[in-house]
Amino acid sequence: MKIALSQLNFHIGNLKYNSEKIINAINKAKSENVDLIIFSELSVCGYSPLDMLENKGFIKDCENAINEIVTHTKGIAAIIGAPTINPNQKGKTLYNSAIFIENGDIIKTINKTILPTYDVFDEYRHFEPNDIFEIIEYKNKKIAVTICEDLWDEQKAFGNFDKDTLYQRSPLKYLSKYKPDFIVNIAASPYSHNHANTRTEILSNNAIKYSTPIIYVNQTGANTDLIFDGGSLVINSKGQKVVEANYFEEDFKTVNIDNIDQLNEIQKVELSKYTYIYKALVLGVKDYFKKSGFKKAVLGLSGGIDSALTLAIAAGALGSENVEAILMPSAYSSEHSVTDAVDMAERCKIKYHIINIEELRQSFEKTMASVFKGTEPGITEENLQARIRGSILMAYSNKFGNIVLNHSNKSEIAVGYSTMYGDMNGAISVIGDIYKTEVYELSNYINQNIKDIIPQNTITKAPSAELRPNQKDDDSLPDYELLDRILFEYIENKLSADEIEKLTDNRETIDFVIKLVTKSEFKRFQSPPILRMSLKAFGFGRRIPIVAKF
Amino acid sequence: MKIALSQLNFHIGNLKYNSEKIINAINKAKSENVDLIIFSELSVCGYSPLDMLENKGFIKDCENAINEIVTHTKGIAAIIGAPTINPNQKGKTLYNSAIFIENGDIIKTINKTILPTYDVFDEYRHFEPNDIFEIIEYKNKKIAVTICEDLWDEQKAFGNFDKDTLYQRSPLKYLSKYKPDFIVNIAASPYSHNHANTRTEILSNNAIKYSTPIIYVNQTGANTDLIFDGGSLVINSKGQKVVEANYFEEDFKTVNIDNIDQLNEIQKVELSKYTYIYKALVLGVKDYFKKSGFKKAVLGLSGGIDSALTLAIAAGALGSENVEAILMPSAYSSEHSVTDAVDMAERCKIKYHIINIEELRQSFEKTMASVFKGTEPGITEENLQARIRGSILMAYSNKFGNIVLNHSNKSEIAVGYSTMYGDMNGAISVIGDIYKTEVYELSNYINQNIKDIIPQNTITKAPSAELRPNQKDDDSLPDYELLDRILFEYIENKLSADEIEKLTDNRETIDFVIKLVTKSEFKRFQSPPILRMSLKAFGFGRRIPIVAKF
Repeated sequence: MKIALSQLNFHIGNLKYNSEKIINAINKAKSENVDLIIFSELSVCGYSPLDMLENKGFIKDCENAINEIVTHTKGIAAIIGAPTINPNQKGKTLYNSAIFIENGDIIKTINKTILPTYDVFDEYRHFEPNDIFEIIEYKNKKIAVTICEDLWDEQKAFGNFDKDTLYQRSPLKYLSKYKPDFIVNIAASPYSHNHANTRTEILSNNAIKYSTPIIYVNQTGANTDLIFDGGSLVINSKGQKVVEANYFEEDFKTVNIDNIDQLNEIQKVELSKYTYIYKALVLGVKDYFKKSGFKKAVLGLSGGIDSALTLAIAAGALGSENVEAILMPSAYSSEHSVTDAVDMAERCKIKYHIINIEELRQSFEKTMASVFKGTEPGITEENLQARIRGSILMAYSNKFGNIVLNHSNKSEIAVGYSTMYGDMNGAISVIGDIYKTEVYELSNYINQNIKDIIPQNTITKAPSAELRPNQKDDDSLPDYELLDRILFEYIENKLSADEIEKLTDNRETIDFVIKLVTKSEFKRFQSPPILRMSLKAFGFGRRIPIVAKF
Repeated sequence: MKIALSQLNFHIGNLKYNSEKIINAINKAKSENVDLIIFSELSVCGYSPLDMLENKGFIKDCENAINEIVTHTKGIAAIIGAPTINPNQKGKTLYNSAIFIENGDIIKTINKTILPTYDVFDEYRHFEPNDIFEIIEYKNKKIAVTICEDLWDEQKAFGNFDKDTLYQRSPLKYLSKYKPDFIVNIAASPYSHNHANTRTEILSNNAIKYSTPIIYVNQTGANTDLIFDGGSLVINSKGQKVVEANYFEEDFKTVNIDNIDQLNEIQKVELSKYTYIYKALVLGVKDYFKKSGFKKAVLGLSGGIDSALTLAIAAGALGSENVEAILMPSAYSSEHSVTDAVDMAERCKIKYHIINIEELRQSFEKTMASVFKGTEPGITEENLQARIRGSILMAYSNKFGNIVLNHSNKSEIAVGYSTMYGDMNGAISVIGDIYKTEVYELSNYINQNIKDIIPQNTITKAPSAELRPNQKDDDSLPDYELLDRILFEYIENKLSADEIEKLTDNRETIDFVIKLVTKSEFKRFQSPPILRMSLKAFGFGRRIPIVAKF
């Protein structure tokens, strides 16, 4: 039996676009004599439509799209992901389903059992969990169809609670009783750099445990903050990877299920984590623009490392001809800030403008003079510069249609070292899930492996916001090595101050950092969406009440 | 048996503050010879701590708080809401529990069965559902303890799908077999104006169905966007309301469970929806400040109805001495905009400043001149005025510590008739869940029932953003009656364009409005938190992917 893994980049809610992609893949599969073609989770609508699922018109249109696709399946079978209406009178309105179509008919609908409801996942919000376990028989093969998290039944509970597994049930325990010839898993599993190996391990462990090969089809492409890396797989019954689709792009692979034991194991190649992060960020920017219907970007270029890195990524994603930069020096800008920024813009071959904000800064001072009389200049005046710059970028965006890219990094977002409605502006935060220490590592990676594009002086000089004379980041923050260590343990690993102290003996700094994180929840609430790179990015996947005190 | 209903205003995560409140109430109950005192859902930590629940240190501290409270229960029993660790090796880490304490000992822990996971509720994100149903026996009474949604088992599924109920299980069906003497329901049920009667009906129906009285204890107070209205109740076995606590404030009521059938039914008083909305908004603003540790507010006063209404609410919440306004006229401001704003400020007896933005407007024009050469003035220049105003308010806030109040209404937020980083600025959106037509109704309500404070001219003049000469809102938007009707059906009732057309025959306008709503998702993503007044407010309870197309 010849099987195709169709790894596509879907656009959420764009049913016509998605159906066309699916139908084209089916036609290609037919021309290659494929028996069964497999698409990813919720392929008809893209993952995840979230509350669009509460709109009945949307669900009806998904049904219509499936019905249209079905008419293209003469002589072939297909597994397609879609939301379907729960026909029972009790429970959530929908199921998250895998629809098995054969030769122009829907044969069976398999529903998802384990519904991830943590971090960025909200599946129990919309779907009823399945409790019926059935096997599909097709061309004398027994197929166990599962959906993404269904194979993650042994996932540990989060945090450092001493628990065994997050879920009660294991779909494969039921399905294995039918002695399936192979397992299918359709997925929409987003990328995160500290998660990539886990996925292969889980698939491999299941294959070994049940002595059954697994065909895993993931989606690719970015939907706002979530970036799906593809990397669809065929794992043989010994747990070896024998087919692997490309990462961060569409792909189409075929395999003959009857001789996968004769295929060689694909040797694991250890690549730098930044190989994937760079690809993920480029795809994230590219798809944000493509799926929003925009072409051109603009960003403020300060001569610092964050904006330079963001520009390098944006130019990689959109092409130099579609990215513009504005340099906005004030009286406090060092000379190198302009020369480094110009250097970066020219290395990138992008169009740039220099707009001096000094007159506006003074004009704000004059306008506020009567109200501010008798006060000392301080943080207010620093923030005003950031807000002038933010307003200039938005004006440029309004006038010419370029979308503003935000270049805050995760460390400064975490501690609130940023100005709301100033440098926090932007439609999308490109490096907001990259700690400052990673910003340097990623910059070096790009210079060494993609293109030597970020000026050395930008990488080596001491980081500064340049909002007052001779300001340096470490005037107000711990050094970034220590800061990032504490932030990682607190945010990603959810450790308490006591627990972090056991790892790094700096109680005062630990308490100071945690206090800054807590105090800046209100700022992050209004942050642009952040391209998610880690297992715990700021934004939708991390929900902390603003007025809380702990 | 004498029972106390303790309706308190908790602060999320502030365990010491909450414990003290609980202990004080226990002491008061003891002094009144109460046998059993009942607190609301998750009372120890406040509802809802969301992802703070993933922090093991937080859970341990909740346990410690409970243990401290237990030491104060000599001679009394108490039911307290708290997160507890799920001792089973499989499933989510926590339960949402009601802890029954008697005379210095924890006697039993009852866990929540039905976990609301829709709109603003994310309970399945953190909690495992209960499946053990036990009765509590205390002083010869059998008590069926339930937690909030546990009594909402007959709730309909959302949207206009033809479904029966959202949930599979009904805790009372199991518990009723023990023939309880009364049912306790501890809750954290947020206010919404189109929901108030539902709650009483559900309690009443359950009391009748099981011929058993119900004691319902809700929390009060606001936590950022969610406002809890209290209104704790005792319902007799005939479904009649016999005890009712105050709304939107703390309260302490007692009832003798043995003679509730002798109590008179409380007659229903029909009050205007704005009676509740006004109280809810005042509480929302007050608690946002109190719980964030701030005292003073500032807002931009334009002479229009939205900022005037917001000021009236803020002055009601914080006191006139704690609210300041800034009037920021430009060349496009009509004369009445300043006179009406001054009038409003003086009626409110608040401090205000007039800061003319004309010089800054020109300074921006001059600064951008070389880049904008050859372009026509338009939306860019309009937005710049809004951003200058936003920056001035934030500068004032930075300098003097006043928190900026946002005064966008729901209609303009819905269609994106607002400027990001301009009039969308603010720490909290006061009237962001109030449609423009409701803004007028609420203003009239306040003038007639609270204090005649909003100038008549502000109410009667045609709404305008005044960002270009002679601009009126209806230049670019349908009239507000029609706009709000369409928005309500689309957002609250989730109807499709086809379905709305059946209600109001304006297909072109319907499509236009829906397109505006969809196109402005990216703006709302960066909006301040909005005080929730309806069953579907923008923000956390409505999750639409930004790059989606449908």
